[in-house]
Parts: sequence; C-alpha cells; structure tokens
Amino acid sequence: MNFRTLRIEPLTHSEFSPYGDVIEVHGATQHFTINDGNTERYHDLARLDPGPEGKVIVSIFRGQPHKAPIEISMLERHPLGSQTFMPLSGKPYLAVVARPDAEPEIEAVRVFLCQGNQGVNYAAGVWHHPLLALEVVCDFLVIDRSGPGNNCDFARLVQPGLIISSS
Amino acid sequence: MNFRTLRIEPLTHSEFSPYGDVIEVHGATQHFTINDGNTERYHDLARLDPGPEGKVIVSIFRGQPHKAPIEISMLERHPLGSQTFMPLSGKPYLAVVARPDAEPEIEAVRVFLCQGNQGVNYAAGVWHHPLLALEVVCDFLVIDRSGPGNNCDFARLVQPGLIISSS
Repeated sequence: MNFRTLRIEPLTHSEFSPYGDVIEVHGATQHFTINDGNTERYHDLARLDPGPEGKVIVSIFRGQPHKAPIEISMLERHPLGSQTFMPLSGKPYLAVVARPDAEPEIEAVRVFLCQGNQGVNYAAGVWHHPLLALEVVCDFLVIDRSGPGNNCDFARLVQPGLIISSS
Repeated sequence: MNFRTLRIEPLTHSEFSPYGDVIEVHGATQHFTINDGNTERYHDLARLDPGPEGKVIVSIFRGQPHKAPIEISMLERHPLGSQTFMPLSGKPYLAVVARPDAEPEIEAVRVFLCQGNQGVNYAAGVWHHPLLALEVVCDFLVIDRSGPGNNCDFARLVQPGLIISSS
C-alpha cells in the first residue's frame, strides 16, 4: 500500500480553528474570578452545537491505546452536531481532521498532538478519525448530540496515511 | 459559633440521586463498543438541562484547595439549569448539597466525597456549596447553562456546618 506520511503538529487555537475549538485554560479569552476569589472560571470555551432537533448529552469514552506506526485509512463526520473530547486521564492523544467542505483526501488530512490538558471540539460536519489514545487506556468526557436523523458518515481514504511516530 | 459537625459519605448513584447524577464508568447502565472495538462508550450519563430559554455551554473551573476543617456557611442554587463538574486533575473533591424543595437548613445538608474519576451533575434548583477542591489546585470541566434570567440564588445557613476531616 502506498501510504502518505503524515506530519504531526502541536495543537493550537489558531491552527485548529478551521475544524472547531481547543478547550483549555491557556489562551482563553473570557475568564473571571468567582466563589469569593476561590475559583477562576474560563468561560464558554467551545461552540456546542446539537443542531435544531438535537440535544446535548455527556458520555465517557474509554479508548484503547494506539502505538505508532498508526494507519489512517478512514474518517468519519457528524453532520448534525458538534463533538467534544476532553481528556480525563491527563495523557496526550491525537486529533486527525480534514476540512468539512469536501470528500476527504489524504492531502487535506492534518494530525494534531493534543496534550493531556487540552480538549477538542469538532464542529458539525468536520471529518475526523475516531479516538486515538496513546500510551495507555484513556478516558475522555465526550459532549455530543442526541436526536433524530443520521449523524455519522464514514469515508475511506483512497490513499491512506501513516503516522510514523506519535510524539 | 455553634457549628454542626457534618459527616462525609462516599459518592454513589443511589445516595446522590435526589440531587442529580454521578458521572462515572462504574455502574453505567448504557454502554456499548464503538470504533471497531477500540472504544467503549458509556452513554448519556447525566440529565443536562439548560431550561427552555437557555443553551448548554462548557467551561473550565480552576479551584483553589481547601484544607479541613472546612466551614459550610452558605449554599447556592441555579434554578434555571443543571451544572456538571467533571474533575480533570484526577483528585478527590467534596460535593455539599441540600434538597431543592426548601430553604436550606443545616439538618438537610449532606457531604459527599467524590473520587477523581467521578463527576457530579447538580439538577436545576439543587442547593450546593461552591467548588471544594482538596489537596492542590484542581481543574474541572463544567457544563452548565447560558441564557436570560437570574440563575443563581444564595442562602446563608442559620447554623453553619463544619467538615472536620476531608477524608
């Protein structure tokens, strides 16, 4: 198989913005002190979007770890709602995405290394790879949509990608 | 001041059910395998409730630690929406609650020791103490309501409570 080698980028607000939101304290534009000075609230960090007929639900995903090399041969998307992943195990993981405006091709795929204190929120319709935990079994809090209609599309990549190292 | 000593209980689904939901893998009634066997989804673990005019938002709270003895002299409630706290630092914390159906009195106050892999979702109107992190500075993912109207009531306890030990 003719794999395309995928480069890993650090996860930043600016580079991830075409795909959704980074959920983290660092760089939060709105934050304020509450609870008589005891707590800092980093406010409204993602555009949660359940669509017109859906509602927001919360779940836990427990993901098995992946070891490099990691083959990327398919992507999925949720056309009707956003999907947030917040790591609960404090470990890094990978977010693999492609722009929502086309059938995904390997040239459009980007790989972000997310730190254990960084969550991601995929905007509705953004192609992404299913959960890619690294190192050990990891739990994630997932905020996504419940409601009527088909909310999961799958696409196989004509040319698959390969992540040679996960760091 | 005449404090009432408050007993600490372990956080369980059954004991916490009058106040809201416990968000954890253990005891989840709905779970299923996704992502070609790679991930277990523990599904829809809390009744997120933004009320009729609100929307669900996600924030991070960074709480300063509390050391015993901890005085409980006030409670707050959010009449228009639920509020979820999910620990991101893996550390235990306290959830202090009272039933929503009355002005809070110290006799109605209960203290739950929550483990670092347990979240809580306070149902709309449930009296609770602001965030009580223990040991060290801790981050929590908070899922609550944004929208019009007053969504925070405060009540001072006529007789305050005292948590003598946090373990």
